[in-house]
Amino acid sequence: MGRDIYAESLDLHERHQGKIGVRGKVPVRTVHDLALTYTPGVAEVCRQIAAAPDLAYRYTLKANTVAIVSDGSAVLGLGDIGGYGAIPVMEGKALLFREFAGIDAFPICFADKDQDLVGQIRNIAPVFGGINLEDIAAPRCFAIEEELQDLGIPVMHDDQHGTGVVVLAALVNACQLIGKEFADLKIVVSGAGAAGYGITRLLTCLGMDRMLCTPVGEIIVCDSRGTLYRGRSDLLSLPHKYILAHETNRWNLDGTLADALVGADVFIGVSAPGIVTTEMVRSMNDDPIVLAMANPVPEIMPGEAAAAGAAIVGTGRSDFPNQVNNVLAFPGIFRGALDAAASRITDEMKLAAAAALAATVDEPRPDHILPDVLDRRVAGAVAAGVQEAAVRCGCARRHAPAQRV
Amino acid sequence: MGRDIYAESLDLHERHQGKIGVRGKVPVRTVHDLALTYTPGVAEVCRQIAAAPDLAYRYTLKANTVAIVSDGSAVLGLGDIGGYGAIPVMEGKALLFREFAGIDAFPICFADKDQDLVGQIRNIAPVFGGINLEDIAAPRCFAIEEELQDLGIPVMHDDQHGTGVVVLAALVNACQLIGKEFADLKIVVSGAGAAGYGITRLLTCLGMDRMLCTPVGEIIVCDSRGTLYRGRSDLLSLPHKYILAHETNRWNLDGTLADALVGADVFIGVSAPGIVTTEMVRSMNDDPIVLAMANPVPEIMPGEAAAAGAAIVGTGRSDFPNQVNNVLAFPGIFRGALDAAASRITDEMKLAAAAALAATVDEPRPDHILPDVLDRRVAGAVAAGVQEAAVRCGCARRHAPAQRV
Repeated sequence: MGRDIYAESLDLHERHQGKIGVRGKVPVRTVHDLALTYTPGVAEVCRQIAAAPDLAYRYTLKANTVAIVSDGSAVLGLGDIGGYGAIPVMEGKALLFREFAGIDAFPICFADKDQDLVGQIRNIAPVFGGINLEDIAAPRCFAIEEELQDLGIPVMHDDQHGTGVVVLAALVNACQLIGKEFADLKIVVSGAGAAGYGITRLLTCLGMDRMLCTPVGEIIVCDSRGTLYRGRSDLLSLPHKYILAHETNRWNLDGTLADALVGADVFIGVSAPGIVTTEMVRSMNDDPIVLAMANPVPEIMPGEAAAAGAAIVGTGRSDFPNQVNNVLAFPGIFRGALDAAASRITDEMKLAAAAALAATVDEPRPDHILPDVLDRRVAGAVAAGVQEAAVRCGCARRHAPAQRV
Repeated sequence: MGRDIYAESLDLHERHQGKIGVRGKVPVRTVHDLALTYTPGVAEVCRQIAAAPDLAYRYTLKANTVAIVSDGSAVLGLGDIGGYGAIPVMEGKALLFREFAGIDAFPICFADKDQDLVGQIRNIAPVFGGINLEDIAAPRCFAIEEELQDLGIPVMHDDQHGTGVVVLAALVNACQLIGKEFADLKIVVSGAGAAGYGITRLLTCLGMDRMLCTPVGEIIVCDSRGTLYRGRSDLLSLPHKYILAHETNRWNLDGTLADALVGADVFIGVSAPGIVTTEMVRSMNDDPIVLAMANPVPEIMPGEAAAAGAAIVGTGRSDFPNQVNNVLAFPGIFRGALDAAASRITDEMKLAAAAALAATVDEPRPDHILPDVLDRRVAGAVAAGVQEAAVRCGCARRHAPAQRV
């Protein structure tokens, strides 16, 4: 993860001039081909869609196309590097959409984040069947995602919900393995940015879905100042943290991360390197689950966590077991949403994604609570769960599985 | 061109769910591939581009990617059918960019044309190496294109300039064939919308380029009310027509299209079906050239024009000789501009495109003043001319031909 991989990556990017391109799906060899794909034949297709815009799903790229939208304000661990700096990540994501789910995804990178991005995303929506928001800084990412929920196509901020789905799937398998019920869990989430918010919101809606039916016993969320609790004065100006404080922390604990972890069953870290000590892990309940996902350096190194008694440890890294990586979720989630021609991605669909993802692991083991990130079965399984949930919750335009291109 | 082609076109569009998709250019088979194309390797690529945005040309899709942007306000002959109705045309154009010039073009269709489209196009520019404006109604198309000329990437409204380039190439070969000089021509342009404006502006800048060196003797532009002349009161509120009135019509003729055509050498029609009579053609100079491009029904049918003495006749249709079709121009123009990493498309580059296009016809004949629209040599020849011109006029970031992907 040092100079070598960077040099090799630069070389690969230069050699290929990026990672994605456009492909034609139909031939243009004869005058007749031209008449069918362009003028005059295309005129009738235009006319029909103009009269009934939903026909864009039938006759255009829309049905299989996702925009990956970023303003470059929170790219990887690099911070606010702008729309140009963000291109390689969005292009990489488009590559993964293509590779894992056969989705045609295209990057949209905004040069100036201080514009009305909600309005601009609305305005470019016609050709897209879904919008993947990416690497947009908190708290603005919450507002942008929420305001776009009425757009008529799925809009999902992957940093929130992709992470949420994978973490939940990991917990499902981890709990099965160590024999704990969700209803009995005390979960501590460290980090109240996009990922922490998405994870926590998904955990708090457990119980509403028939597949993952028991609500979590208790959840406490911490940010760098300690627990989020009702009455914490700085939360009044931070709506998303204010919401979390009201939806979690049943006993309204005002304390540090260390305080919160006492007796906890699960630690979920999407925060900062090295902030969890072995003592904190020792203070947790029996067989604690530690998902320490700060990148590239986790909240606690897997070896230390295990030595301190953690039964199951996961990180965000590929060089340790149990890699929590969004690529296990987003291709399948959007594949399922597109196959349903869904109008949005609901909590039920996210829960179904997590259940399906968890089920792809035939026999969970402590070092294998999630499938391999390159496992090609995963996206299809997740997609099937999501599509079924979309139909069930009434946000599917299309009820039968669509043909793939 | 009746029901059959429409039914067949609908069927093709439905069978393939549109006409373009996204392709991956690099493999993602191993954890190492993932590390190179996505995290952690991509971080260094992001960092370098954030520090020097022009590196996006080196490391991302930008160098080979064009946005095809429309608000659907003037689609084919269908009028203002909106952003959804426009998708099939923009997707078809993307297909042609891919097929003829190896360019990765992606459609951007605006849902609401009454927004600040200039600002929105600026804001999505990072991933694109060029912007092809398409099917935007006049006179707004002129302002949008002009305001975007400082964007740093080529922005060209194809309805204006693509048409202009092909018409000019046709005239070059036609004049060579019948032995007339540009300096002696009287040209009448019927139609003062996007195409008429683009054609006329290109004709008026003849003489500035060493390849097409003689200015045109005289040009008169007509709209549905007659000639554009200085002092015509309604032109004060129509800046683009006002400009044309001042740049053309040397003797300031106030008259009808029929008046203008008396003694003319060339008729260029981008206006309305059937408005030119055989008598008008007879009133023209010897060996008149008639390019009657109203679609699908020309200003005068080729047989009638020939019977009335036209030496050379062209239309916009594929079922008559000398089809004037933008596909002869736009793929090569953008290919050349991208290969130069040009900051804009100048008049010199358009003139070079026309010269190169004309030169692809080895031996012009009256029924063959333009190459076949499917001739695969054309785009490369046009591109070479455009790239050379870009270097010559100092708007090329890159001086050697770029590698194609």
